[in-house]
Amino acid sequence: MRIDMVTIFPEMFSGPFGDSITKRAVDNGILDIHFTNFRDFAEDKHHHVDDSPFGGGAGMVLKPEPMYKAVRDVLARTEEYAANRRVLIMDPSGPTFNQAKAKELAGYDQLVFICGHYEGFDARIYKLADEAISIGDFVLTGGELPAMVITDAVSRMLPGVLGHEDSAPTDSFYEGLLEFPQYTRPREFEGMEVPEVLLNGDHAKIRQWRREQSLLVTKKYRPDLLDKAPLTDKDRQFLAEYQD
Amino acid sequence: MRIDMVTIFPEMFSGPFGDSITKRAVDNGILDIHFTNFRDFAEDKHHHVDDSPFGGGAGMVLKPEPMYKAVRDVLARTEEYAANRRVLIMDPSGPTFNQAKAKELAGYDQLVFICGHYEGFDARIYKLADEAISIGDFVLTGGELPAMVITDAVSRMLPGVLGHEDSAPTDSFYEGLLEFPQYTRPREFEGMEVPEVLLNGDHAKIRQWRREQSLLVTKKYRPDLLDKAPLTDKDRQFLAEYQD
Repeated sequence: MRIDMVTIFPEMFSGPFGDSITKRAVDNGILDIHFTNFRDFAEDKHHHVDDSPFGGGAGMVLKPEPMYKAVRDVLARTEEYAANRRVLIMDPSGPTFNQAKAKELAGYDQLVFICGHYEGFDARIYKLADEAISIGDFVLTGGELPAMVITDAVSRMLPGVLGHEDSAPTDSFYEGLLEFPQYTRPREFEGMEVPEVLLNGDHAKIRQWRREQSLLVTKKYRPDLLDKAPLTDKDRQFLAEYQD
Repeated sequence: MRIDMVTIFPEMFSGPFGDSITKRAVDNGILDIHFTNFRDFAEDKHHHVDDSPFGGGAGMVLKPEPMYKAVRDVLARTEEYAANRRVLIMDPSGPTFNQAKAKELAGYDQLVFICGHYEGFDARIYKLADEAISIGDFVLTGGELPAMVITDAVSRMLPGVLGHEDSAPTDSFYEGLLEFPQYTRPREFEGMEVPEVLLNGDHAKIRQWRREQSLLVTKKYRPDLLDKAPLTDKDRQFLAEYQD
């Protein structure tokens, strides 16, 4: 998969992408990440990318021209991906990113991320994107961190990225439930013991305990997820009995 | 505010924290960010921070001892903040971070972030934290990106961090609504024109148009937010009439 970040702060990505699953995916040739600085496409002599908002108000607004030129330049340089690519604009007004969207985005050959910074976009910039995505109901300085978050989540879904030690299938949200509690050595730590069931090697019992713990943790912390999770009759019976 | 990141990948933070609001807050002495590598607290000769899960399964689990030692070391070294600090564990099972939580966290003198990486935490590690926080319903490689996201959102809420050009008060979510569309020069770009109302200098009309646009955008993309937003009678009337 090819990733294009359109940003005025390409250096922001160096740390996170130098040290994670993303780096491994790049090293393995699964992910190919490029940066385009839209300031390079600003044609006035000071390379301004923003200007005051029409109608007044504090804050600056990103101008349409540099972003249009930058994104079109990316798309023209990467024609070979045209059949299966997606242009995403990082915006808190967009639908909220989740694991299902990560899986969907992992099916494209190219993702182009439009990252703003500090200020808002001129509304006409949205027409450049196939979709707006938010990572949550909070305000950030720019689109760079959201683009990193989405790239990390998407890259984990690409075939060959996760080693067997990374255990994607048991991660939270894969089955619509929160993860069961995990324990490693020592068996006893400051008076806190590992649950007995995990020590006896009875794998059917361990599976059942873990499923039940997942159900209980989800019920306690994120009951909204239970409504959408694919539950078995046995799961429902367990939850009903636990309630009594 | 003092921030302590407890992580085995402190270098991941260099890019994002070198180039944003966060950097400005650090330069102005408003934010003081420290890193503690919990691998330094692993006492076996290979400095292992993880081990296989009891009960079997793929993936590794972060051991309790190095994390306990690292976090306790941070807390002991920063006694002066003990009266008003919070230890946060980055975990997809926690309640979802939002702008209200950012505001709440901005009221502490110290935040300690426990970041896992690749694998899960031994369940006993949770007892070290005052609360678990998730940034959304998706799976990431580690807690570092969530810690950066939360730090960015929180630091924007600290007095003196945002310059007047950054316009926190009109940002999305401050009033529980999505932001109205913004426009800057040129007035006409590739056939797309700036709405007339923004050009005539009638500030009462501009305020009304922006409020109505916020209501419409929120209604279209995030109707769930309207239920919680503090709406005036005039807002409700506008929405009701628009529906007809």
